[in-house]
Amino acid sequence: MKLVAAGAVSGARLAHAAGAVAAQVERWGKFAIELKGPATGNPFAEVRVAAEFTKGARTVKVEGFYDGDGVYRVRWMPDELGTWQWVTRSPVASMEGTKGAFTCVAPTAANHGPVGVTDTFHFRHADGTRYFPFGTTCYAWVFESERLQEMTLTNLKRAGFNKVRMCVLPKTFAAGEPERHPFPMVNGKLDFTRFDTEFFRHLEKRVKDLDAIGVQADVILFHPYGKPWGYDQMPKEVNERYVRYVVARLGSLRNVWWSLANEYDLLKTWTMEEWDHLFRVVEEADVAGHLRSVHHSGPMYDYAKPWVTHASLQTYDFDKTAEWKKAWGKPVIFDEVQYEGNIWRRWGNLTGEELTRRFWLAVTAGAYCTHGEVIAVKDSKDGMSADGGVLLGESPQRIAFLRKLVEGTNVGLQQMEGAYYRCANGNAGKPGEVILYYFDYHRPTDYPFPLPEGASYKAELIDPWAMMVTPVPGTFTGKSDITLSGQPYQAVRFKRV
Amino acid sequence: MKLVAAGAVSGARLAHAAGAVAAQVERWGKFAIELKGPATGNPFAEVRVAAEFTKGARTVKVEGFYDGDGVYRVRWMPDELGTWQWVTRSPVASMEGTKGAFTCVAPTAANHGPVGVTDTFHFRHADGTRYFPFGTTCYAWVFESERLQEMTLTNLKRAGFNKVRMCVLPKTFAAGEPERHPFPMVNGKLDFTRFDTEFFRHLEKRVKDLDAIGVQADVILFHPYGKPWGYDQMPKEVNERYVRYVVARLGSLRNVWWSLANEYDLLKTWTMEEWDHLFRVVEEADVAGHLRSVHHSGPMYDYAKPWVTHASLQTYDFDKTAEWKKAWGKPVIFDEVQYEGNIWRRWGNLTGEELTRRFWLAVTAGAYCTHGEVIAVKDSKDGMSADGGVLLGESPQRIAFLRKLVEGTNVGLQQMEGAYYRCANGNAGKPGEVILYYFDYHRPTDYPFPLPEGASYKAELIDPWAMMVTPVPGTFTGKSDITLSGQPYQAVRFKRV
Repeated sequence: MKLVAAGAVSGARLAHAAGAVAAQVERWGKFAIELKGPATGNPFAEVRVAAEFTKGARTVKVEGFYDGDGVYRVRWMPDELGTWQWVTRSPVASMEGTKGAFTCVAPTAANHGPVGVTDTFHFRHADGTRYFPFGTTCYAWVFESERLQEMTLTNLKRAGFNKVRMCVLPKTFAAGEPERHPFPMVNGKLDFTRFDTEFFRHLEKRVKDLDAIGVQADVILFHPYGKPWGYDQMPKEVNERYVRYVVARLGSLRNVWWSLANEYDLLKTWTMEEWDHLFRVVEEADVAGHLRSVHHSGPMYDYAKPWVTHASLQTYDFDKTAEWKKAWGKPVIFDEVQYEGNIWRRWGNLTGEELTRRFWLAVTAGAYCTHGEVIAVKDSKDGMSADGGVLLGESPQRIAFLRKLVEGTNVGLQQMEGAYYRCANGNAGKPGEVILYYFDYHRPTDYPFPLPEGASYKAELIDPWAMMVTPVPGTFTGKSDITLSGQPYQAVRFKRV
Repeated sequence: MKLVAAGAVSGARLAHAAGAVAAQVERWGKFAIELKGPATGNPFAEVRVAAEFTKGARTVKVEGFYDGDGVYRVRWMPDELGTWQWVTRSPVASMEGTKGAFTCVAPTAANHGPVGVTDTFHFRHADGTRYFPFGTTCYAWVFESERLQEMTLTNLKRAGFNKVRMCVLPKTFAAGEPERHPFPMVNGKLDFTRFDTEFFRHLEKRVKDLDAIGVQADVILFHPYGKPWGYDQMPKEVNERYVRYVVARLGSLRNVWWSLANEYDLLKTWTMEEWDHLFRVVEEADVAGHLRSVHHSGPMYDYAKPWVTHASLQTYDFDKTAEWKKAWGKPVIFDEVQYEGNIWRRWGNLTGEELTRRFWLAVTAGAYCTHGEVIAVKDSKDGMSADGGVLLGESPQRIAFLRKLVEGTNVGLQQMEGAYYRCANGNAGKPGEVILYYFDYHRPTDYPFPLPEGASYKAELIDPWAMMVTPVPGTFTGKSDITLSGQPYQAVRFKRV
C-alpha cells in the first residue's frame, strides 16, 4: 500500500494538514474531514479510515469512505452542542492520528434534526418538533433525466409531501439504461468491487435537495427490480460493503431514513439471516441512528425485531393497525397502498377519491400513509411519477389538506378502540384534546357523537374531497347529535375549548 | 279428551267424512286434509294428528296441526306425479284411519317446485329450472299495516327481487305493537302454550302472495329482537312446539326456505346444542326438505353441519368466499351486507353505488347476495323498507340488472382462482362458456384479458351503474387487449361463440 504524498506527515498532525475543515458546524449539520491516502489497488475494498469524535466522556467513532483520486472522507452529523475534538484512525499511516476540533453550534431555523420515534407510535425531529410523514414515491428519480429530476423537486415542493421513498439501485422498468450506476460499468458489466463516486455525489446532492424543501429521504438500499444488471445476485460481501459505503456517504445527512429494501421478499434467494445481518450492519455503522425499516410484498418482515424502528407496510388492511401496533410497539407507515393511476396493473389504477380515502383510514387508525401515482400519458413519460416527475392526480392536494389537519393537532393521533365509527384522538397531555371522526363510505344524515362528559368541544364538519372545514355553531359536551351532510367520506373534528 | 261430533266415525272412513279434499293436486302444490277433533283442553299441546301418503313402495308421514275450533289439518306438498293413497293417524279415534286418494298432476307453468341446491354451490327449482337468489329483507312486513303490506308486494314485483327474508316473530323496533302475535295475548302477556291461528292464516296468505309474484320466502323462525314479549326466553319445549307448528302449517308451500334465526348468536342464553336440535327438528318435520340455514351476527354457525343446506352470512368479506365454499361444500349467500340507507347506524347508510358494488363482488365470487334498505323519510315510515314498504334507493334497479345478466348465463358462476382481476365463469357443460370480469374500484384504461386459447369470444362492456351493455366489435381469442372506460366499477362479459 502506497502512502499518498499530500499531507503525509507521520504521527500526530493538525487538522489543516488534512484539507479544509470547518471550525463551526450547526447541530445536525454535516461535519466532514478530507484525507489523502492510497489511490492504487482497490481502496474501496482495501483501505479503512475512520474518525473518533470526543466531547467530555463521550466518543463517537465514524467510518469514512473512499471518494476516488486518493481522497478519503469521514462525515458526521454532530448531535450535541459544544466543542468536539476529533482524531482520524486508519491502518494507513498517512491517515492515522490526524486531529482537530470544531464547535457544534445551534441549528438554523429550518434545521430540526433527524426524525426519530416519539410516543411509541409517532415521529418527531431531534429538536422535539413533531413530524407527520405524508410521503410519496419517487423510486428511480435520481436515474431520470436532469429535467425530470428538477421537475420532481419543483413538484414535491408544490404538492406538499414531506417524505419520498427513493432507490439507490436503478430499476429496469424506469428511465431506461441509467447514465451512471452506483458501481462502475466496465465493458458492459458492473464491477461490484468498486463504487462510482460520481453517482454517489449526485445521489447526495439529490438527498440534500430534498432536505432543502423539507422532505425526508427514505433511502431504499435493495430491491428486486435490477436483475438484468445482477443487483439481485451480488455476493454477500458486496452487499455489506455497499451498505457500509452508502451509510458512510449519506449517514451525515439529517433527512435520511434507511429502508433496507422495497419488496424484500421478492429477492427470492435471500435468507432472513441476511436481512437481519444487514439491518445490524446499518444499525452499527450509522452512528446518527436514522430510522430503519424494510418494505415487503407478501410476507411481512418481523417488525418487532429490535433493529427495526417502524413498520413499512405494503397493504391497505387498515383495520389491523391496532393489532400490529400492539404486536410491534412501533409506528406504522402504510408505505404502499396502491397508486392513483390509470394503468392496467391492479396496483396502479386507483381513483384520487380512493387513495384519499386510504390516507384518511390510515391516519384515523393512528398510522401514516404514503402516496404514489402512475398516470400514463400517451407519448409522454412525465406523468409516471412513482419514479418522479409531475403529479397529475387528484389526491395530492387532498392529502396535503389532511396533512395540515393532522399537523394542526400538534400530536399524533391514536385510534379510539371500540368507537362505533372510525375515530381517532390526539391528546397533547390532555385527554380528548382533538377528536377526529371519519365516516368512510357511510353516509349518516346525523350522528349522536359520544363526546366525553365534563368537557366542552367546538365541532367542525370536514369535507376531505372539497377540502372544506365548516364550523358547527355552539359547543358540545357528552352525547351530542350533530347533523351531517349525508354524503360518503365525511369527517368531523372536535376541539376541546 | 272429548271427541268432536262432526264426522266422528270410528274405524276406517272415507275422505269426504273429513271435509273437502281435492281429487287432483298439481305437483309441488298443496294437498290438505281437514279433520274434526277435540276443541277443549289445549289441542295445540295435547293432540297429535298426522297422515301417511303412499304411492307404490314409498310412504311419507306428515304431521298436522290444530287450527282452532276443533279443526285439524294435515298439509303436504306432493313431489311425485301419480295417484297417492293417504290415511290419517292420530291417538284420537275420530282422526285415526281416515282414508282417501288424490292424483298428483303436472304443475302449472309458473310452478317450478321448491328451490334446492345444485352443482354444490348453486340453486335450482325441483323441475330443474335454475334459480339465482337476488333477495331483499322485509323482516317484519307481516306485522305492518295492511296498506304497507300491499305496498310491499307491489314494490317487490316492480323491484325485481326473488327472495325475501321475513320473520315469524315480531320485532320491537318495527311497526309498533303488533295487532296479532303468533301466540295469543292473554291479559297483556303472551300464552306460549297456544298459537294464534288467525295470525298464522295471515302469515300463510302472505307467503302465498310472495309465491304468486315469484318470490321465495326465507322464513326466519327466531331472532333476538323480541325481548319485551319474552321471545328470547321461551322454554325449550315451546321453541320446539313452535318450530313444529310453523313447519306443519307452512311446509307445504313450495316457496318456503327455513332460516333458523336472524343473528342467532345474539340470543345469548341459547346453547349451540339447542340450535343443532332445532335444526334437526326442522329437518325431520319438514318432509318437503326446504332449504335450511341460520344467519349470524358475530360468530358464524358451523355451516358444514349436515342439516344445513347453505350458508347465510352477515359479512361483506367477499374475498373469503372460495375458502368458505371449500370448507362447507355448500352455496354461500351473503344475506346481510349492510343496507342502502341514511340512518346513523353503521349498517344502515350505504350508498346505492356501494351496495351495487357488493352484489357484484358476491356474484363474481361465485356466491349470492341479499339487498336491504333503511331510508328514513321525515314524518313517514313508508321508506323503512328493511321491514317492507316502498324501496326508495338507487341500488334495486342495478341489482335487477345484474340478476338479468346472471340469469342470462343459465348457469351458476364460479370464481376463477388466481385471476388477476375479479373474474367468474359459467360453464353450462362447456368450459369458459361465459366469462365475467368485474374491476371493482380499479379503473384501467385497457386490460390484456387472458382468454383461453382455441376458443372464440364475443366481448361486451358492462356499466353496472348505467346498466348499459355495449358490444365490442370483433371476436377474441387468447390474450386480448381491450380498451376500457377508465372509470371505476366496470365489468366485461365474454361469451363463447
